[in-house]
Amino acid sequence: MEMWVKESQIGDAVMTYKVKETLVRKKTKYQDLAIVDTYALGRMLLLDGIVQTTINDEYVYHEMITHIPLFTHPNPKKVLVVGGGDGGTIREILKHTSVEKAVLCEIDEDVIKECKKYLPEISCALDDPRCEIFIGDGIKYVHEHKNEFDVVIVDSTDPFGAAEGLFGGSFYKEIFNCLTEDGIFVAQTETPFYLPNQVKQIYDDAKEAFPITKIFMAAIPTYPSGYWSFTIGSKKHDPENADLSKVPNLNTRYYTKKLHKASFVLPKYVEDLLK
Amino acid sequence: MEMWVKESQIGDAVMTYKVKETLVRKKTKYQDLAIVDTYALGRMLLLDGIVQTTINDEYVYHEMITHIPLFTHPNPKKVLVVGGGDGGTIREILKHTSVEKAVLCEIDEDVIKECKKYLPEISCALDDPRCEIFIGDGIKYVHEHKNEFDVVIVDSTDPFGAAEGLFGGSFYKEIFNCLTEDGIFVAQTETPFYLPNQVKQIYDDAKEAFPITKIFMAAIPTYPSGYWSFTIGSKKHDPENADLSKVPNLNTRYYTKKLHKASFVLPKYVEDLLK
Repeated sequence: MEMWVKESQIGDAVMTYKVKETLVRKKTKYQDLAIVDTYALGRMLLLDGIVQTTINDEYVYHEMITHIPLFTHPNPKKVLVVGGGDGGTIREILKHTSVEKAVLCEIDEDVIKECKKYLPEISCALDDPRCEIFIGDGIKYVHEHKNEFDVVIVDSTDPFGAAEGLFGGSFYKEIFNCLTEDGIFVAQTETPFYLPNQVKQIYDDAKEAFPITKIFMAAIPTYPSGYWSFTIGSKKHDPENADLSKVPNLNTRYYTKKLHKASFVLPKYVEDLLK
Repeated sequence: MEMWVKESQIGDAVMTYKVKETLVRKKTKYQDLAIVDTYALGRMLLLDGIVQTTINDEYVYHEMITHIPLFTHPNPKKVLVVGGGDGGTIREILKHTSVEKAVLCEIDEDVIKECKKYLPEISCALDDPRCEIFIGDGIKYVHEHKNEFDVVIVDSTDPFGAAEGLFGGSFYKEIFNCLTEDGIFVAQTETPFYLPNQVKQIYDDAKEAFPITKIFMAAIPTYPSGYWSFTIGSKKHDPENADLSKVPNLNTRYYTKKLHKASFVLPKYVEDLLK
Protein backbone atom coordinates (compact mmCIF):
# COMPACT_ATOMS: atom_id res chain seq x y z
CA MET A 1 0.00 0.00 0.00
CA GLU A 2 1.25 3.47 -0.86
CA MET A 3 0.39 6.50 1.28
CA TRP A 4 0.44 9.94 -0.32
CA VAL A 5 -0.36 13.33 1.14
CA LYS A 6 -1.96 15.99 -1.10
CA GLU A 7 -1.36 19.70 -0.67
CA SER A 8 -4.14 21.67 -2.23
CA GLN A 9 -3.84 25.37 -1.52
CA ILE A 10 -4.25 25.75 -5.28
CA GLY A 11 -7.23 23.51 -6.02
CA ASP A 12 -6.46 22.58 -9.62
CA ALA A 13 -2.67 22.22 -9.24
CA VAL A 14 -2.11 19.77 -6.42
CA MET A 15 1.27 18.67 -5.11
CA THR A 16 1.48 15.14 -3.72
CA TYR A 17 4.19 13.52 -1.61
CA LYS A 18 4.77 9.84 -0.93
CA VAL A 19 4.59 9.21 2.81
CA LYS A 20 6.69 6.77 4.84
CA GLU A 21 4.86 7.28 8.08
CA THR A 22 2.31 9.52 9.78
CA LEU A 23 3.94 10.68 13.00
CA VAL A 24 1.00 12.63 14.41
CA ARG A 25 -2.44 13.65 13.20
CA LYS A 26 -4.84 15.54 15.46
CA LYS A 27 -7.52 18.19 15.60
CA THR A 28 -6.18 20.95 17.77
CA LYS A 29 -8.34 23.75 19.16
CA TYR A 30 -7.66 25.73 15.97
CA GLN A 31 -6.74 23.43 13.12
CA ASP A 32 -6.03 20.01 11.66
CA LEU A 33 -2.38 19.27 12.48
CA ALA A 34 -0.28 16.55 10.84
CA ILE A 35 3.40 15.71 10.81
CA VAL A 36 4.28 13.07 8.24
CA ASP A 37 7.59 11.63 7.13
CA THR A 38 7.93 11.92 3.35
CA TYR A 39 10.38 10.21 1.00
CA ALA A 40 11.19 13.35 -0.99
CA LEU A 41 11.57 15.94 1.77
CA GLY A 42 11.81 14.26 5.14
CA ARG A 43 9.40 15.18 7.92
CA MET A 44 6.70 17.68 6.96
CA LEU A 45 4.27 19.80 9.01
CA LEU A 46 0.80 20.36 7.54
CA LEU A 47 -1.90 22.60 9.01
CA ASP A 48 -5.40 22.24 7.56
CA GLY A 49 -3.84 20.21 4.76
CA ILE A 50 -1.35 22.89 3.72
CA VAL A 51 2.41 22.30 3.88
CA GLN A 52 3.98 24.65 6.43
CA THR A 53 7.54 23.41 6.49
CA THR A 54 9.70 20.37 5.76
CA ILE A 55 13.08 19.23 7.05
CA ASN A 56 14.63 19.47 3.56
CA ASP A 57 13.60 22.97 2.53
CA GLU A 58 12.69 24.82 5.76
CA TYR A 59 15.95 26.78 5.75
CA VAL A 60 14.94 28.85 2.72
CA TYR A 61 11.82 30.25 4.37
CA HIS A 62 13.26 30.66 7.87
CA GLU A 63 16.49 32.29 6.76
CA MET A 64 14.83 34.73 4.39
CA ILE A 65 11.98 35.84 6.68
CA THR A 66 14.54 36.45 9.45
CA HIS A 67 17.86 37.66 8.05
CA ILE A 68 16.49 40.17 5.56
CA PRO A 69 14.86 42.31 8.32
CA LEU A 70 17.44 41.57 11.03
CA PHE A 71 20.41 42.48 8.86
CA THR A 72 18.56 45.56 7.61
CA HIS A 73 18.06 46.84 11.17
CA PRO A 74 21.39 48.16 12.56
CA ASN A 75 20.89 46.77 16.06
CA PRO A 76 17.84 44.54 16.62
CA LYS A 77 17.41 43.77 20.33
CA LYS A 78 13.77 42.78 20.73
CA VAL A 79 12.01 40.71 18.08
CA LEU A 80 8.40 39.47 17.97
CA VAL A 81 7.27 36.48 15.94
CA VAL A 82 3.51 36.16 15.40
CA GLY A 83 2.75 32.52 14.59
CA GLY A 84 5.80 30.42 13.76
CA GLY A 85 5.12 27.76 16.40
CA ASP A 86 7.51 25.35 14.64
CA GLY A 87 10.34 27.48 16.00
CA GLY A 88 12.41 27.83 12.82
CA THR A 89 12.19 31.61 12.77
CA ILE A 90 13.18 31.80 16.46
CA ARG A 91 16.19 29.57 15.68
CA GLU A 92 17.37 31.99 12.98
CA ILE A 93 16.67 35.10 15.08
CA LEU A 94 18.80 33.82 17.94
CA LYS A 95 21.78 33.48 15.61
CA HIS A 96 21.93 37.30 15.84
CA THR A 97 24.06 38.17 18.86
CA SER A 98 22.45 41.62 19.18
CA VAL A 99 19.09 40.03 20.03
CA GLU A 100 18.31 40.10 23.75
CA LYS A 101 14.75 38.82 23.59
CA ALA A 102 12.70 36.97 20.97
CA VAL A 103 9.00 36.60 21.77
CA LEU A 104 7.02 33.86 20.05
CA CYS A 105 3.29 34.62 20.10
CA GLU A 106 1.57 31.46 18.86
CA ILE A 107 -2.16 30.86 19.21
CA ASP A 108 -1.97 27.05 18.96
CA GLU A 109 -0.02 25.40 21.78
CA ASP A 110 -0.22 22.04 20.03
CA VAL A 111 1.89 23.28 17.12
CA ILE A 112 4.74 24.04 19.52
CA LYS A 113 4.29 20.79 21.41
CA GLU A 114 4.29 18.52 18.35
CA CYS A 115 7.12 20.38 16.59
CA LYS A 116 9.25 20.07 19.73
CA LYS A 117 8.61 16.35 19.63
CA TYR A 118 8.86 15.58 15.92
CA LEU A 119 10.82 18.44 14.32
CA PRO A 120 13.70 19.08 16.76
CA GLU A 121 15.99 20.37 13.98
CA ILE A 122 13.53 23.23 13.50
CA SER A 123 12.22 23.79 17.04
CA CYS A 124 15.62 23.45 18.74
CA ALA A 125 15.87 27.07 19.94
CA LEU A 126 12.47 27.30 21.64
CA ASP A 127 14.00 26.48 25.04
CA ASP A 128 16.73 29.12 24.69
CA PRO A 129 16.67 31.57 27.64
CA ARG A 130 16.38 34.51 25.22
CA CYS A 131 13.13 33.05 23.80
CA GLU A 132 9.84 33.88 25.54
CA ILE A 133 6.78 31.93 24.46
CA PHE A 134 3.34 33.49 24.74
CA ILE A 135 0.32 31.35 23.89
CA GLY A 136 -2.43 33.59 22.62
CA ASP A 137 -3.86 35.81 19.94
CA GLY A 138 -1.28 37.74 17.92
CA ILE A 139 -3.68 40.59 17.16
CA LYS A 140 -4.31 41.16 20.89
CA TYR A 141 -0.61 40.84 21.75
CA VAL A 142 0.44 43.39 19.14
CA HIS A 143 -2.32 45.77 20.28
CA GLU A 144 -1.13 45.58 23.88
CA HIS A 145 2.55 46.22 23.17
CA LYS A 146 3.35 49.67 21.83
CA ASN A 147 6.73 50.98 20.71
CA GLU A 148 8.45 47.86 21.96
CA PHE A 149 9.92 45.68 19.18
CA ASP A 150 12.71 46.41 16.69
CA VAL A 151 11.42 43.75 14.33
CA VAL A 152 8.00 42.08 14.04
CA ILE A 153 7.83 38.92 11.91
CA VAL A 154 4.42 37.58 10.90
CA ASP A 155 5.15 33.90 10.32
CA SER A 156 1.54 32.83 9.84
CA THR A 157 -0.57 30.43 7.82
CA ASP A 158 -2.44 31.77 4.80
CA PRO A 159 -4.93 34.66 4.72
CA PHE A 160 -8.04 32.54 5.16
CA GLY A 161 -9.29 30.67 8.24
CA ALA A 162 -7.38 31.05 11.52
CA ALA A 163 -4.82 33.58 10.27
CA GLU A 164 -7.14 35.88 8.29
CA GLY A 165 -6.83 38.68 10.86
CA LEU A 166 -3.04 38.65 10.52
CA PHE A 167 -3.35 40.19 7.05
CA GLY A 168 -4.76 43.60 6.18
CA GLY A 169 -4.37 47.29 6.79
CA SER A 170 -5.71 47.53 10.33
CA PHE A 171 -3.32 44.86 11.62
CA TYR A 172 -0.38 46.43 9.78
CA LYS A 173 -1.13 49.76 11.48
CA GLU A 174 -1.15 47.99 14.85
CA ILE A 175 2.23 46.47 13.98
CA PHE A 176 3.53 49.93 13.09
CA ASN A 177 2.63 51.07 16.59
CA CYS A 178 4.12 47.96 18.18
CA LEU A 179 7.48 48.77 16.56
CA THR A 180 10.15 51.14 17.87
CA GLU A 181 10.90 54.32 15.93
CA ASP A 182 13.13 52.58 13.38
CA GLY A 183 11.33 49.24 13.47
CA ILE A 184 10.81 46.79 10.65
CA PHE A 185 7.90 44.46 9.84
CA VAL A 186 7.98 41.41 7.58
CA ALA A 187 5.39 38.78 6.64
CA GLN A 188 5.10 35.77 4.34
CA THR A 189 2.72 36.92 1.66
CA GLU A 190 1.82 34.15 -0.81
CA THR A 191 2.61 33.40 -4.46
CA PRO A 192 2.30 36.16 -7.07
CA PHE A 193 2.04 33.53 -9.81
CA TYR A 194 -1.12 31.80 -8.57
CA LEU A 195 -2.51 34.51 -6.26
CA PRO A 196 -1.61 37.89 -7.77
CA ASN A 197 -4.63 39.70 -6.32
CA GLN A 198 -3.82 38.64 -2.75
CA VAL A 199 -0.18 39.71 -3.10
CA LYS A 200 -1.22 43.07 -4.53
CA GLN A 201 -3.78 43.63 -1.75
CA ILE A 202 -1.28 42.81 1.00
CA TYR A 203 1.34 45.07 -0.56
CA ASP A 204 -1.12 47.95 -0.88
CA ASP A 205 -2.29 47.46 2.72
CA ALA A 206 1.29 47.46 4.02
CA LYS A 207 2.05 50.58 1.97
CA GLU A 208 -0.75 52.39 3.79
CA ALA A 209 0.98 51.69 7.11
CA PHE A 210 4.71 52.01 6.32
CA PRO A 211 6.76 54.71 4.56
CA ILE A 212 9.07 52.09 3.03
CA THR A 213 7.29 48.99 1.67
CA LYS A 214 8.93 46.40 -0.56
CA ILE A 215 8.50 42.82 -1.70
CA PHE A 216 11.27 40.26 -1.88
CA MET A 217 11.12 36.71 -3.24
CA ALA A 218 12.53 33.32 -2.31
CA ALA A 219 12.52 29.92 -4.03
CA ILE A 220 10.68 27.58 -1.65
CA PRO A 221 10.08 24.20 -3.32
CA THR A 222 7.16 23.10 -1.11
CA TYR A 223 5.04 26.25 -1.47
CA PRO A 224 2.72 26.56 -4.49
CA SER A 225 4.62 27.64 -7.63
CA GLY A 226 7.89 27.30 -5.68
CA TYR A 227 8.32 31.07 -5.67
CA TRP A 228 7.16 32.95 -2.62
CA SER A 229 6.76 36.61 -1.72
CA PHE A 230 7.55 38.35 1.53
CA THR A 231 6.35 41.86 2.24
CA ILE A 232 8.53 44.13 4.31
CA GLY A 233 7.45 47.43 5.85
CA SER A 234 10.00 49.72 7.41
CA LYS A 235 9.93 53.05 9.24
CA LYS A 236 13.47 54.22 8.38
CA HIS A 237 15.81 51.56 7.03
CA ASP A 238 15.53 50.52 3.37
CA PRO A 239 16.00 46.73 3.23
CA GLU A 240 17.06 46.75 -0.42
CA ASN A 241 19.85 49.25 0.22
CA ALA A 242 20.90 48.02 3.66
CA ASP A 243 24.57 48.38 4.62
CA LEU A 244 25.65 44.75 4.80
CA SER A 245 29.39 45.43 5.04
CA LYS A 246 29.54 44.32 8.67
CA VAL A 247 27.18 41.36 8.36
CA PRO A 248 28.85 38.29 9.88
CA ASN A 249 28.78 34.82 8.36
CA LEU A 250 25.87 32.97 10.00
CA ASN A 251 26.51 29.65 8.29
CA THR A 252 23.33 29.88 6.24
CA ARG A 253 22.23 27.53 3.45
CA TYR A 254 20.22 29.99 1.31
CA TYR A 255 20.82 33.58 2.47
CA THR A 256 23.92 35.45 1.32
CA LYS A 257 24.63 39.19 1.32
CA LYS A 258 24.44 39.26 -2.47
CA LEU A 259 21.17 37.33 -2.43
CA HIS A 260 19.75 39.77 0.15
CA LYS A 261 19.90 42.50 -2.51
CA ALA A 262 19.06 40.24 -5.47
CA SER A 263 15.88 38.95 -3.80
CA PHE A 264 14.34 42.43 -4.23
CA VAL A 265 14.82 42.32 -8.01
CA LEU A 266 11.40 41.23 -9.21
CA PRO A 267 10.29 39.58 -12.44
CA LYS A 268 8.46 41.94 -14.78
CA TYR A 269 5.04 40.40 -14.02
CA VAL A 270 5.51 41.03 -10.30
CA GLU A 271 6.85 44.55 -10.90
CA ASP A 272 3.78 45.27 -13.03
CA LEU A 273 1.44 43.81 -10.41
CA LEU A 274 2.66 46.24 -7.76
CA LYS A 275 2.29 49.38 -9.89
CA MET B 1 -15.54 12.16 -13.52
CA GLU B 2 -12.35 14.12 -12.83
CA MET B 3 -9.28 13.82 -15.07
CA TRP B 4 -5.88 14.62 -13.62
CA VAL B 5 -2.44 14.46 -15.18
CA LYS B 6 0.55 13.52 -13.01
CA GLU B 7 4.05 14.85 -13.61
CA SER B 8 6.59 12.58 -12.04
CA GLN B 9 10.13 13.60 -12.91
CA ILE B 10 10.73 13.42 -9.15
CA GLY B 11 9.15 10.09 -8.22
CA ASP B 12 8.21 10.82 -4.61
CA ALA B 13 7.08 14.42 -5.10
CA VAL B 14 4.47 14.37 -7.83
CA MET B 15 2.67 17.40 -9.21
CA THR B 16 -0.88 16.82 -10.47
CA TYR B 17 -3.09 19.07 -12.61
CA LYS B 18 -6.81 18.87 -13.16
CA VAL B 19 -7.53 18.42 -16.85
CA LYS B 20 -10.42 19.90 -18.83
CA GLU B 21 -9.65 18.07 -22.04
CA THR B 22 -7.01 15.96 -23.75
CA LEU B 23 -6.30 17.66 -27.07
CA VAL B 24 -3.85 15.12 -28.45
CA ARG B 25 -2.12 12.02 -27.18
CA LYS B 26 0.15 9.96 -29.42
CA LYS B 27 3.28 7.85 -29.57
CA THR B 28 5.64 9.65 -31.91
CA LYS B 29 8.76 8.05 -33.37
CA TYR B 30 10.68 9.22 -30.27
CA GLN B 31 8.34 9.78 -27.35
CA ASP B 32 4.89 9.85 -25.79
CA LEU B 33 3.40 13.24 -26.68
CA ALA B 34 0.37 14.81 -25.01
CA ILE B 35 -1.20 18.24 -25.08
CA VAL B 36 -3.89 18.67 -22.43
CA ASP B 37 -5.92 21.67 -21.37
CA THR B 38 -5.58 22.20 -17.61
CA TYR B 39 -7.68 24.35 -15.27
CA ALA B 40 -4.71 25.86 -13.45
CA LEU B 41 -2.33 26.64 -16.31
CA GLY B 42 -4.14 26.40 -19.63
CA ARG B 43 -2.84 24.11 -22.35
CA MET B 44 0.19 22.02 -21.42
CA LEU B 45 2.69 19.99 -23.47
CA LEU B 46 3.99 16.77 -21.92
CA LEU B 47 6.67 14.51 -23.38
CA ASP B 48 7.08 11.08 -21.80
CA GLY B 49 4.87 12.32 -18.96
CA ILE B 50 7.04 15.33 -18.12
CA VAL B 51 5.68 18.87 -18.39
CA GLN B 52 7.58 20.79 -21.08
CA THR B 53 5.65 24.02 -21.20
CA THR B 54 2.26 25.55 -20.42
CA ILE B 55 0.42 28.57 -21.78
CA ASN B 56 0.45 30.27 -18.36
CA ASP B 57 4.13 30.02 -17.44
CA GLU B 58 6.02 29.37 -20.69
CA TYR B 59 7.27 32.95 -20.88
CA VAL B 60 9.60 32.50 -17.91
CA TYR B 61 11.54 29.67 -19.53
CA HIS B 62 11.55 31.01 -23.08
CA GLU B 63 12.51 34.55 -22.14
CA MET B 64 15.32 33.51 -19.81
CA ILE B 65 16.90 30.86 -22.06
CA THR B 66 16.89 33.37 -24.94
CA HIS B 67 17.44 36.91 -23.69
CA ILE B 68 20.27 36.18 -21.28
CA PRO B 69 22.61 34.91 -24.06
CA LEU B 70 21.26 37.17 -26.83
CA PHE B 71 21.62 40.34 -24.78
CA THR B 72 25.07 39.20 -23.60
CA HIS B 73 26.28 38.85 -27.20
CA PRO B 74 26.86 42.30 -28.74
CA ASN B 75 25.49 41.40 -32.18
CA PRO B 76 23.90 37.95 -32.52
CA LYS B 77 23.10 37.23 -36.17
CA LYS B 78 22.87 33.44 -36.43
CA VAL B 79 21.30 31.41 -33.64
CA LEU B 80 20.81 27.64 -33.37
CA VAL B 81 18.17 26.01 -31.17
CA VAL B 82 18.65 22.29 -30.50
CA GLY B 83 15.28 20.84 -29.50
CA GLY B 84 12.62 23.43 -28.70
CA GLY B 85 10.06 22.14 -31.19
CA ASP B 86 7.27 24.05 -29.43
CA GLY B 87 8.75 27.21 -30.97
CA GLY B 88 8.79 29.41 -27.85
CA THR B 89 12.53 29.97 -27.97
CA ILE B 90 12.39 30.83 -31.70
CA ARG B 91 9.62 33.35 -30.93
CA GLU B 92 11.83 35.11 -28.37
CA ILE B 93 14.96 34.96 -30.57
CA LEU B 94 13.16 36.67 -33.45
CA LYS B 95 12.31 39.62 -31.20
CA HIS B 96 16.00 40.52 -31.59
CA THR B 97 16.32 42.66 -34.71
CA SER B 98 20.02 41.77 -35.12
CA VAL B 99 19.12 38.12 -35.79
CA GLU B 100 19.22 37.23 -39.49
CA LYS B 101 18.69 33.50 -39.15
CA ALA B 102 17.40 31.22 -36.40
CA VAL B 103 17.74 27.48 -37.05
CA LEU B 104 15.52 25.06 -35.17
CA CYS B 105 17.02 21.57 -35.12
CA GLU B 106 14.32 19.30 -33.70
CA ILE B 107 14.49 15.51 -33.91
CA ASP B 108 10.72 14.94 -33.52
CA GLU B 109 8.62 16.40 -36.31
CA ASP B 110 5.42 15.60 -34.43
CA VAL B 111 6.30 18.05 -31.64
CA ILE B 112 6.40 20.89 -34.16
CA LYS B 113 3.23 19.71 -35.91
CA GLU B 114 1.11 19.38 -32.75
CA CYS B 115 2.43 22.59 -31.17
CA LYS B 116 1.58 24.50 -34.34
CA LYS B 117 -1.93 23.11 -34.07
CA TYR B 118 -2.62 23.37 -30.34
CA LEU B 119 -0.15 25.92 -28.93
CA PRO B 120 -0.20 28.77 -31.49
CA GLU B 121 0.70 31.36 -28.83
CA ILE B 122 4.03 29.56 -28.41
CA SER B 123 4.70 28.25 -31.92
CA CYS B 124 3.63 31.44 -33.70
CA ALA B 125 7.07 32.36 -35.07
CA LEU B 126 7.94 29.03 -36.66
CA ASP B 127 6.72 30.23 -40.05
CA ASP B 128 8.77 33.43 -39.91
CA PRO B 129 11.07 33.74 -42.96
CA ARG B 130 14.09 34.15 -40.65
CA CYS B 131 13.37 30.73 -39.08
CA GLU B 132 14.78 27.61 -40.73
CA ILE B 133 13.53 24.26 -39.48
CA PHE B 134 15.76 21.20 -39.73
CA ILE B 135 14.30 17.85 -38.68
CA GLY B 136 17.10 15.67 -37.41
CA ASP B 137 19.63 14.82 -34.76
CA GLY B 138 21.08 17.81 -32.91
CA ILE B 139 24.38 16.06 -32.22
CA LYS B 140 24.93 15.41 -35.93
CA TYR B 141 23.83 18.94 -36.90
CA VAL B 142 26.21 20.57 -34.42
CA HIS B 143 29.06 18.32 -35.58
CA GLU B 144 28.51 19.29 -39.21
CA HIS B 145 28.41 23.05 -38.64
CA LYS B 146 31.67 24.59 -37.49
CA ASN B 147 32.31 28.20 -36.51
CA GLU B 148 28.86 29.21 -37.70
CA PHE B 149 26.53 30.32 -34.88
CA ASP B 150 26.77 33.29 -32.52
CA VAL B 151 24.50 31.61 -30.00
CA VAL B 152 23.56 27.93 -29.53
CA ILE B 153 20.58 27.21 -27.27
CA VAL B 154 20.01 23.64 -26.10
CA ASP B 155 16.26 23.63 -25.39
CA SER B 156 15.97 19.91 -24.74
CA THR B 157 14.11 17.44 -22.56
CA ASP B 158 15.90 16.01 -19.52
CA PRO B 159 19.24 14.14 -19.50
CA PHE B 160 17.77 10.65 -19.74
CA GLY B 161 16.10 8.93 -22.69
CA ALA B 162 15.97 10.74 -26.04
CA ALA B 163 17.98 13.81 -24.97
CA GLU B 164 20.76 12.08 -23.03
CA GLY B 165 23.36 12.84 -25.71
CA LEU B 166 22.56 16.57 -25.50
CA PHE B 167 24.25 16.72 -22.10
CA GLY B 168 27.91 16.06 -21.33
CA GLY B 169 31.43 17.15 -22.10
CA SER B 170 31.81 15.75 -25.60
CA PHE B 171 28.66 17.50 -26.85
CA TYR B 172 29.67 20.77 -25.18
CA LYS B 173 33.04 20.63 -26.99
CA GLU B 174 31.19 20.13 -30.28
CA ILE B 175 29.04 23.15 -29.47
CA PHE B 176 32.19 25.16 -28.76
CA ASN B 177 33.38 24.37 -32.28
CA CYS B 178 29.98 25.15 -33.77
CA LEU B 179 30.14 28.66 -32.31
CA THR B 180 31.88 31.69 -33.80
CA GLU B 181 34.90 33.14 -32.02
CA ASP B 182 32.85 35.09 -29.48
CA GLY B 183 29.92 32.66 -29.37
CA ILE B 184 27.71 31.76 -26.42
CA PHE B 185 26.06 28.48 -25.43
CA VAL B 186 23.13 28.03 -23.04
CA ALA B 187 21.11 25.01 -21.91
CA GLN B 188 18.30 24.20 -19.50
CA THR B 189 20.00 22.20 -16.78
CA GLU B 190 17.57 20.86 -14.17
CA THR B 191 16.79 21.66 -10.51
CA PRO B 192 19.65 22.00 -8.03
CA PHE B 193 17.21 21.31 -5.17
CA TYR B 194 16.11 17.84 -6.24
CA LEU B 195 18.96 16.92 -8.60
CA PRO B 196 22.14 18.54 -7.27
CA ASN B 197 24.49 15.91 -8.69
CA GLN B 198 23.16 16.33 -12.21
CA VAL B 199 23.48 20.12 -12.04
CA LYS B 200 27.03 19.84 -10.71
CA GLN B 201 28.01 17.34 -13.44
CA ILE B 202 26.60 19.51 -16.23
CA TYR B 203 28.34 22.60 -14.85
CA ASP B 204 31.68 20.78 -14.58
CA ASP B 205 31.31 19.38 -18.11
CA ALA B 206 30.53 22.84 -19.52
CA LYS B 207 33.50 24.30 -17.63
CA GLU B 208 35.79 21.86 -19.44
CA ALA B 209 34.64 23.27 -22.76
CA PHE B 210 34.22 27.00 -22.12
CA PRO B 211 36.52 29.63 -20.55
CA ILE B 212 33.52 31.42 -18.98
CA THR B 213 30.89 29.11 -17.45
CA LYS B 214 28.09 30.29 -15.16
CA ILE B 215 24.72 29.19 -13.87
CA PHE B 216 21.65 31.39 -13.67
CA MET B 217 18.27 30.59 -12.16
CA ALA B 218 14.63 31.26 -12.98
CA ALA B 219 11.37 30.62 -11.13
CA ILE B 220 9.37 28.26 -13.36
CA PRO B 221 6.23 27.05 -11.54
CA THR B 222 5.68 23.89 -13.61
CA TYR B 223 9.21 22.47 -13.30
CA PRO B 224 10.07 20.37 -10.22
CA SER B 225 10.83 22.59 -7.19
CA GLY B 226 9.78 25.65 -9.23
CA TYR B 227 13.38 26.81 -9.42
CA TRP B 228 15.36 25.93 -12.51
CA SER B 229 18.99 26.23 -13.52
CA PHE B 230 20.43 27.24 -16.87
CA THR B 231 24.09 26.73 -17.68
CA ILE B 232 25.81 29.25 -19.92
CA GLY B 233 29.20 28.79 -21.55
CA SER B 234 30.86 31.69 -23.31
CA LYS B 235 34.07 32.21 -25.26
CA LYS B 236 34.54 35.93 -24.56
CA HIS B 237 31.50 37.77 -23.17
CA ASP B 238 30.67 37.43 -19.47
CA PRO B 239 26.85 37.13 -19.19
CA GLU B 240 26.78 38.32 -15.58
CA ASN B 241 28.64 41.52 -16.42
CA ALA B 242 27.13 42.17 -19.84
CA ASP B 243 26.70 45.78 -20.93
CA LEU B 244 22.92 46.11 -20.99
CA SER B 245 22.82 49.88 -21.35
CA LYS B 246 21.58 49.69 -24.95
CA VAL B 247 19.16 46.80 -24.45
CA PRO B 248 15.77 47.74 -25.90
CA ASN B 249 12.44 47.03 -24.23
CA LEU B 250 11.15 43.74 -25.71
CA ASN B 251 7.84 43.76 -23.89
CA THR B 252 8.79 40.77 -21.74
CA ARG B 253 6.80 39.34 -18.84
CA TYR B 254 9.69 37.95 -16.74
CA TYR B 255 13.04 39.22 -18.06
CA THR B 256 14.28 42.67 -17.09
CA LYS B 257 17.79 44.12 -17.26
CA LYS B 258 18.04 44.10 -13.47
CA LEU B 259 16.82 40.50 -13.31
CA HIS B 260 19.39 39.52 -15.96
CA LYS B 261 22.12 40.31 -13.42
CA ALA B 262 20.20 39.16 -10.34
CA SER B 263 19.51 35.72 -11.85
CA PHE B 264 23.24 34.92 -11.52
CA VAL B 265 23.17 35.54 -7.76
CA LEU B 266 22.82 32.01 -6.40
CA PRO B 267 21.54 30.71 -3.07
CA LYS B 268 24.30 29.49 -0.77
CA TYR B 269 23.46 25.83 -1.34
CA VAL B 270 23.87 26.26 -5.10
CA GLU B 271 27.07 28.29 -4.68
CA ASP B 272 28.46 25.52 -2.48
CA LEU B 273 27.41 22.84 -4.96
CA LEU B 274 29.46 24.42 -7.75
CA LYS B 275 32.68 24.77 -5.74
